[in-house]
Amino acid sequence: MQFEQITIVGVGLIGGSIGLAAKERALAGRIVGVGRDASNLVCARELGAIDSFTTNLAESVRSASLVVVCTPVDRIADIVLEAARHCRPGTILTDAGSTKREIVRVVHNEIVEDVFFVGSHPLAGSEKTGVEYARADMFRDRVTVVTPSSQTDKSACDKVVEFWKTLQSIVSILSPEEHDAAVAMTSHLPHALASAVAGCTPRAYLNLTAGGFRDVTRIAAGDPGLWVAIFLANREYVLSALDRFSNRLDEFKRLLAAGDSAGLMRWLAEGKQVRDAVGS
Amino acid sequence: MQFEQITIVGVGLIGGSIGLAAKERALAGRIVGVGRDASNLVCARELGAIDSFTTNLAESVRSASLVVVCTPVDRIADIVLEAARHCRPGTILTDAGSTKREIVRVVHNEIVEDVFFVGSHPLAGSEKTGVEYARADMFRDRVTVVTPSSQTDKSACDKVVEFWKTLQSIVSILSPEEHDAAVAMTSHLPHALASAVAGCTPRAYLNLTAGGFRDVTRIAAGDPGLWVAIFLANREYVLSALDRFSNRLDEFKRLLAAGDSAGLMRWLAEGKQVRDAVGS
Repeated sequence: MQFEQITIVGVGLIGGSIGLAAKERALAGRIVGVGRDASNLVCARELGAIDSFTTNLAESVRSASLVVVCTPVDRIADIVLEAARHCRPGTILTDAGSTKREIVRVVHNEIVEDVFFVGSHPLAGSEKTGVEYARADMFRDRVTVVTPSSQTDKSACDKVVEFWKTLQSIVSILSPEEHDAAVAMTSHLPHALASAVAGCTPRAYLNLTAGGFRDVTRIAAGDPGLWVAIFLANREYVLSALDRFSNRLDEFKRLLAAGDSAGLMRWLAEGKQVRDAVGS
Repeated sequence: MQFEQITIVGVGLIGGSIGLAAKERALAGRIVGVGRDASNLVCARELGAIDSFTTNLAESVRSASLVVVCTPVDRIADIVLEAARHCRPGTILTDAGSTKREIVRVVHNEIVEDVFFVGSHPLAGSEKTGVEYARADMFRDRVTVVTPSSQTDKSACDKVVEFWKTLQSIVSILSPEEHDAAVAMTSHLPHALASAVAGCTPRAYLNLTAGGFRDVTRIAAGDPGLWVAIFLANREYVLSALDRFSNRLDEFKRLLAAGDSAGLMRWLAEGKQVRDAVGS
């Protein structure tokens, strides 16, 4: 048992999976869920993701040793700061947000003394949302990025790293900036493209789609609200990633317009090489 | 039994699956495979996809009632025309190529009399290639487009439709042009984008990819040679599809650069709506 009490703020797909995984690994004495929607919390308790719940943030963190904030990214910093004011000295707070730079900066600048914040981002989840899809093995063999800055407490960081490792995640340590630049390319860009393809496909053609279309567009089914917040929080890096992508696609257009068979072959082979390195 | 002998030219993923499905549905008295690589044909016979084989095209089609050409698209028209010269009168030829306009046009203009060609495209397959991945249920509940033109024999077309239906496919009838315009959007465009994303992702970021990246880029693992042929055969429609996509993505860039939260929400919701209509 690493923590006497873990409080999970926002018990949806990710928060619920943290609860299930933490219970499976006997990581906490008790797990408290907190959120605005009591019926969702009832459901989370029935699924075994949390032991008890409240809709009162202050109350939920008062006895917490670890607080994990799993809300949409645009609410994380405020919630961490608010929760921190009600924590005992020594409490560690972390999050599961898809962007890190703004969150880490704002929290480190404004957080009360005697508690510790460490930014995290488990690269897990799916286009589905809701605690009903939570799984105890959500983080197994998946990367979680932990993003200390120069202001992050070293010992708190170690404990957060240990926390994710106990959930069977592979931990990667990056600066908040390195993290945001990387996920702009590997996650936010693909999401925008998936949505762009889906959004420009005429309805009349939808019965002529096969596995390729379904794969490429799958994540476009994700929650628009969550993604607006992610894109806005990572705007500059996403715009750079879009430029990088557009340059690559322009190359394809030029080769195709010119009927350059050898050039197209090389271009496609480069993409295949990267894809083959990733695994199914 | 609808056909005394079916000859499959090119016994890979699709050709092999046709053989397996035809045998399972007792569609042919015998199934003959033909190709350039005898060792592949030995493998296909061992897997039960064909009854016998030859590397001689003329010989393979001499007693065929139905010939199905499953080679890369840039070789289909020539093979159909060559095979047709050795068929008995009344033989029906079809194909499984991803593009139809050029193939149907060239074949109808040049084919010998007394045999019948009907273009087909089963929307099935995957990023994998080779008869070892062939499956008897490859076409079940998948759409196959049959593309008669004004020059296509009506009764031969009916028989080809029946053939695909017996393989449990859902048949859609379109003109070659309608087909090519549609698959440019639903298949060729997604392939180019998947490859472009993979191709522009820095290697250093590959360990920071999750399910979204894997889904979006999966088809980029497809065979570059096959896809060069497809892109070149459908160049004009693919270029139009790319323009349509770029306009859609430019909208996203503008909304993001402007920080237009409501606009991004609407843009993402439109993509989600299309994706939700497709099914997993």
